[in-house]
Amino acid sequence: MSDRLPRKVCVVLVDRANYGRLKPVMRAIDRHPDLELQVVCAGTTVLERFDLPVRRVREDGFRVDGEVYLELEGSTPVTMAKSVGFGVVEFANEFQRLKPDLVLLIGDRYEALAAAIAAAYMNLCIVHIQGGEVSGSIDESARHCITKLAHFHCPSTRRSAEYIIRMGERPDTILSIGCPSSDIARELDVALDPEIVNSRGSGAWVDVAQPYLLVIYHPTTTEYGGERKQMDELLEALAELATPTVLLWPNIDAGSDHVSKAVRVFRDRAKPTWLRTLINLAPEDYLRVLANAACAIGNSSSFVRDASYFGTPVVLVGGRQDGRETDEHVVRVPPARARIVDATLKQLQHGRYAPSTLYGDGHVSERIAEALARLDPYVQKRLHYVHDGGESSGARLQCAYLAS
Amino acid sequence: MSDRLPRKVCVVLVDRANYGRLKPVMRAIDRHPDLELQVVCAGTTVLERFDLPVRRVREDGFRVDGEVYLELEGSTPVTMAKSVGFGVVEFANEFQRLKPDLVLLIGDRYEALAAAIAAAYMNLCIVHIQGGEVSGSIDESARHCITKLAHFHCPSTRRSAEYIIRMGERPDTILSIGCPSSDIARELDVALDPEIVNSRGSGAWVDVAQPYLLVIYHPTTTEYGGERKQMDELLEALAELATPTVLLWPNIDAGSDHVSKAVRVFRDRAKPTWLRTLINLAPEDYLRVLANAACAIGNSSSFVRDASYFGTPVVLVGGRQDGRETDEHVVRVPPARARIVDATLKQLQHGRYAPSTLYGDGHVSERIAEALARLDPYVQKRLHYVHDGGESSGARLQCAYLAS
Amino acid sequence: MSDRLPRKVCVVLVDRANYGRLKPVMRAIDRHPDLELQVVCAGTTVLERFDLPVRRVREDGFRVDGEVYLELEGSTPVTMAKSVGFGVVEFANEFQRLKPDLVLLIGDRYEALAAAIAAAYMNLCIVHIQGGEVSGSIDESARHCITKLAHFHCPSTRRSAEYIIRMGERPDTILSIGCPSSDIARELDVALDPEIVNSRGSGAWVDVAQPYLLVIYHPTTTEYGGERKQMDELLEALAELATPTVLLWPNIDAGSDHVSKAVRVFRDRAKPTWLRTLINLAPEDYLRVLANAACAIGNSSSFVRDASYFGTPVVLVGGRQDGRETDEHVVRVPPARARIVDATLKQLQHGRYAPSTLYGDGHVSERIAEALARLDPYVQKRLHYVHDGGESSGARLQCAYLAS
Amino acid sequence: MSDRLPRKVCVVLVDRANYGRLKPVMRAIDRHPDLELQVVCAGTTVLERFDLPVRRVREDGFRVDGEVYLELEGSTPVTMAKSVGFGVVEFANEFQRLKPDLVLLIGDRYEALAAAIAAAYMNLCIVHIQGGEVSGSIDESARHCITKLAHFHCPSTRRSAEYIIRMGERPDTILSIGCPSSDIARELDVALDPEIVNSRGSGAWVDVAQPYLLVIYHPTTTEYGGERKQMDELLEALAELATPTVLLWPNIDAGSDHVSKAVRVFRDRAKPTWLRTLINLAPEDYLRVLANAACAIGNSSSFVRDASYFGTPVVLVGGRQDGRETDEHVVRVPPARARIVDATLKQLQHGRYAPSTLYGDGHVSERIAEALARLDPYVQKRLHYVHDGGESSGARLQCAYLAS
Repeated sequence: MSDRLPRKVCVVLVDRANYGRLKPVMRAIDRHPDLELQVVCAGTTVLERFDLPVRRVREDGFRVDGEVYLELEGSTPVTMAKSVGFGVVEFANEFQRLKPDLVLLIGDRYEALAAAIAAAYMNLCIVHIQGGEVSGSIDESARHCITKLAHFHCPSTRRSAEYIIRMGERPDTILSIGCPSSDIARELDVALDPEIVNSRGSGAWVDVAQPYLLVIYHPTTTEYGGERKQMDELLEALAELATPTVLLWPNIDAGSDHVSKAVRVFRDRAKPTWLRTLINLAPEDYLRVLANAACAIGNSSSFVRDASYFGTPVVLVGGRQDGRETDEHVVRVPPARARIVDATLKQLQHGRYAPSTLYGDGHVSERIAEALARLDPYVQKRLHYVHDGGESSGARLQCAYLAS
Repeated sequence: MSDRLPRKVCVVLVDRANYGRLKPVMRAIDRHPDLELQVVCAGTTVLERFDLPVRRVREDGFRVDGEVYLELEGSTPVTMAKSVGFGVVEFANEFQRLKPDLVLLIGDRYEALAAAIAAAYMNLCIVHIQGGEVSGSIDESARHCITKLAHFHCPSTRRSAEYIIRMGERPDTILSIGCPSSDIARELDVALDPEIVNSRGSGAWVDVAQPYLLVIYHPTTTEYGGERKQMDELLEALAELATPTVLLWPNIDAGSDHVSKAVRVFRDRAKPTWLRTLINLAPEDYLRVLANAACAIGNSSSFVRDASYFGTPVVLVGGRQDGRETDEHVVRVPPARARIVDATLKQLQHGRYAPSTLYGDGHVSERIAEALARLDPYVQKRLHYVHDGGESSGARLQCAYLAS
Repeated sequence: MSDRLPRKVCVVLVDRANYGRLKPVMRAIDRHPDLELQVVCAGTTVLERFDLPVRRVREDGFRVDGEVYLELEGSTPVTMAKSVGFGVVEFANEFQRLKPDLVLLIGDRYEALAAAIAAAYMNLCIVHIQGGEVSGSIDESARHCITKLAHFHCPSTRRSAEYIIRMGERPDTILSIGCPSSDIARELDVALDPEIVNSRGSGAWVDVAQPYLLVIYHPTTTEYGGERKQMDELLEALAELATPTVLLWPNIDAGSDHVSKAVRVFRDRAKPTWLRTLINLAPEDYLRVLANAACAIGNSSSFVRDASYFGTPVVLVGGRQDGRETDEHVVRVPPARARIVDATLKQLQHGRYAPSTLYGDGHVSERIAEALARLDPYVQKRLHYVHDGGESSGARLQCAYLAS
Repeated sequence: MSDRLPRKVCVVLVDRANYGRLKPVMRAIDRHPDLELQVVCAGTTVLERFDLPVRRVREDGFRVDGEVYLELEGSTPVTMAKSVGFGVVEFANEFQRLKPDLVLLIGDRYEALAAAIAAAYMNLCIVHIQGGEVSGSIDESARHCITKLAHFHCPSTRRSAEYIIRMGERPDTILSIGCPSSDIARELDVALDPEIVNSRGSGAWVDVAQPYLLVIYHPTTTEYGGERKQMDELLEALAELATPTVLLWPNIDAGSDHVSKAVRVFRDRAKPTWLRTLINLAPEDYLRVLANAACAIGNSSSFVRDASYFGTPVVLVGGRQDGRETDEHVVRVPPARARIVDATLKQLQHGRYAPSTLYGDGHVSERIAEALARLDPYVQKRLHYVHDGGESSGARLQCAYLAS
């Protein structure tokens, strides 16, 4: 491979969580002699309101090749739809300029779907991380859409890999299994400097040496209009628990303005002495806060995925993660005050769980980078069922990697 | 159902072919007491350059509720990608205004994908016709994307239905099987008035009482850059055959300008006395021209689908329909002059085939309309595999309709 | 005029200030027998982050015919430019749907420019309020652009009317002189219920019976990058004054995120006991707060315009209003702490000024409505200089209204 | 100036005519030691349907830094409006990437307005060529809008310069007078190879040694809906004249599809033996065809401007150039068959006129390039009237250049 130009891999980051998971992959691509890293920061990573996660990417030493503003203000279903459309236009511009050999996407957000559509119609070869998972919200549909547009897949779990193949993808397009966020978790020194939490954001000072709660609650877009009531229930539950709490503001999905408003109104009225609100944390710092939390409450997918690495107890609230593979550290409750309080008290009583490798063994990024260097790009996809002998054999795992 | 408002079904038409297939469904919806028809004409249906198919829709007595201009000029992969993005924005506007209960889409074009994305992010319930088929071009990916966004499915064949379920859709969301274009074909008086072909377009007068060829050649977007050479081969083959030929200009996909240019250059240089070019035909007239052709040559999906109803011999050129279910009337050849000539001569010698019901029995539209009235709309999708007992039982056909 | 359909006048509102000025015009249109009011709410009026000014429009009894989301998040020069572009597309949709006879715009914001462009290219007749004024920021250019697209003009002052004519507009297209905000001011009971200020927003309780400051500071987009430093100077000045202060958050122009951040950081660090921050006020309530302020500090155009009606002392900070006609109640200072403090102390010492009618006599709305009903719409504009006898006679005021 | 980086000048080309005029300016910039040329090709220059004028730019040795697709298909007032919006977004992307020191625009097309808006909101310094002219169509408004956004001006005539100043621009921002197209005309060998006309396009072979007509008819957007009838009149006039005719297809303005359709229908029905249609010509070739024509008929601004250099007789049809300064070679008629025929016969009888320098002396480009190198860029504009002593002195020409 030394006799040709390195393969250009364009990594698309659309929010702080994306970066938290892709950072080790970006490092591995950067170090690989046969790969050249391109970074496009989009979505909320370039917004002041989200504390400019793109700045962190640069501070970590990465060159950012493009910044894509695509979020139409409003956080309603209509503006979310239009942001997808706008994103397709803007990503098309970036890809035309950067001419990548591979486009590397992660997850299920609408910004990632926009990038996938632009790349697919431009005949670019797409690699997708975290396909095949199951959840609620519109993310569920977007994730499988991206799978149907992607040419290669790096799912996080064996079940996800199997589901991708059952959906008609070629078994040999599964490049690896495991979420790269496990790599960060494996190497992380989880010791938490109290300044990380208390030197930014606003509200009460939180003593991280004592038990504290971590709360993230995003809207479930398919239940648009219900999020204010849900968040009010959650806030009432927190008021009843009255335990020191670190709350991160929600993402930008339709309904997020209502969630944020619930927090602001609650804060102004109840003047809680136990609540600190934060906009953004560096990837490692976020994991430290998660690792040290006595309990995580809400509906972030990181409570399912990353919390498992540390065994942090989780109270998963509402339908946003329905269908998602979870380990024993997770308890599911509806968004009802009493149910949240009960489940949290039980989790606090139980304490930490044993760490899990359900979502990755901590050695994922190198495998992905190596696969990116070796794979044979192609453009024309075709539902793999047409190559089946019979009807269901396609659902059998046939890729060499899985057999190992 | 009489005690409530009729259910608003928004039918999206994006090209002349869409209308040719959806017209009987639109009629059936219009007549159904529990349904209210909304029609949005988009894509090339509103373009003068494509002879304004929307005019035909109005002439047939339908009210057109919205006209959506979304085609960015250029017919390159980049402009096609951006047209998707622009389309999402514009369909979002239309849906916000029309507030349909159901959005009814057909096929696999990028304009339909744009409508599907807008509808999905706006929590609208989507019904998709012609899912589960397999082909080449980017349409292959777009079609399955739409399936993953759609809440209900009306596939055209049993295999398509099975594939949709294998992709993880709930078996009970398959509403019917069969393409509604079969309904038109069944009822059609195929007698062809020569004026239909000769009163519009330009070029030679074609005597439809004598054997003539019908040619449609669209670009295969995943082979962008190759379409000019392919079309030149096809035109040379036609020159060698020198048989009266009706050629329809290509669609608007990336590369279509190159296909059109090949035709214009050929026409100016070779001054063929056997060639007539047409922009657009009414749905029934198109079927008459297809039904009476001695052979259809090219890569239109209607050569696979609609030609089967009439047993018209077809020479399917290139990769655009690879993987598509075909009947015995179809011969596949690569886009090479000699191969096209040979196959056409053989088909002309063979003559008509027996009609087929592979793509529908001619009684599809009423079934679709009835299902639209009865179905129970929902918003949150979920990959059906999570409800499997085992791993592959989800791939079994379980819907009542299929069992009959 | 009774024998024909009422003339449809589409009023475009793009921020809270627009509504504060257009409300009496909307009332007058609504009441006029020959006019039919259409209302399109756009820009920040539909954003939760700006407290949904559209809600107030509805509460006041107006029907809102369209909501236009056009703000691309980021508040940088690039996103502001793109928001104009996006706005043109979205206003084109609204105008296509509403088919107004006249489009009524006010001011100089980029959202209004977007509406003007859409309307002009769609051959709609445009009436513009507040043309011919002079200021800093990009608004200066946008305002004159709108003048060059508008078919009729309702300037606020005699100088503005003269300037519009000197720019080459036909003298007979000046419909009236005076700002409609003077109408509200004239009729307003300025008694200020302390709840208006203290029942919303956050921060200190402000005793409105005692002297208080009103502060609004928007970014000057042509000085993008300098706004953070400017706002820091202003906040330091306020800290030195330590007088009870009502601060309204800035608009959405490029740089506003930096202004907001300066406030948030100042608030978190200095924990001022004299500062209350508000997002939004009803038009009349805003005027009451302005009328009762001991001094208004910042760069809102309302400090020039509306403060003059009440004689409220103003310290105008920075270049945003350079060139604007002001009355004696205004003192101009650069954005420097010491200068702001000095000027404010002098204004507080001076106390209220005599009310002025520079920007209107309080009887403007009826004149505008009447002119809208009577004017003769046209489409093709032409630089009026070509009709001059000589070179400069076009600069003479020739409209009947001005002669009076 | 040798101790700093060359000043980056971004030249925006939006159609074939733009290039025909800017080519000598681009050459002069390219050669200037203190300037660096950037070229963005947009609008119809990148469209296959317009024969890809961008290809010619590259063949002439220029590097093209960006290609902007912004034309939404449809050629209606709504799609034209939306193309402006789309163009603003796309130009913003290009300018963000290219970071020019100056943006150089020409003329009055909507694509140029889009570029001007993007540049202005991004605080870029704009230089505008051909401001201050007067015409019909929406171009009239767009031209003056661009003037109000531009920071420097290079008008083509003394009257235009005067009008720009009267509109409130600073006299010292007038950089030069004269249209750069005069430079090409001055140096051009007008000998016309018949192959230039006959080796492309379609229709009759035209003997350029004999008298022939040149016809260009664009829609007047402010008369949208009337263009089909107007073009039919013109075609009937041509049929009556039955003189060898070279017709260029219209631009892409709203209504152009109707003009094109009129030509296609006429061609198919009347099968004229005297008509040749062309899509595009190289700038010099176009001028040769214009210079050698016995009469030019239609409404292209080049019939006013470029034809004057050669003294080609012109019949100016309809309102599109109303108000434009013309020389004696131009006769104006309404779009009525008989009037066109009469005027053309008179012009043919009259024969060539004396060449004119109304629009330039043929030494313009070097002056512009030199001014670009020397000017002092600024961002904040301000209506110059505020600096007047009195009311009309601003309308006096005060710039040094004009005094010479």
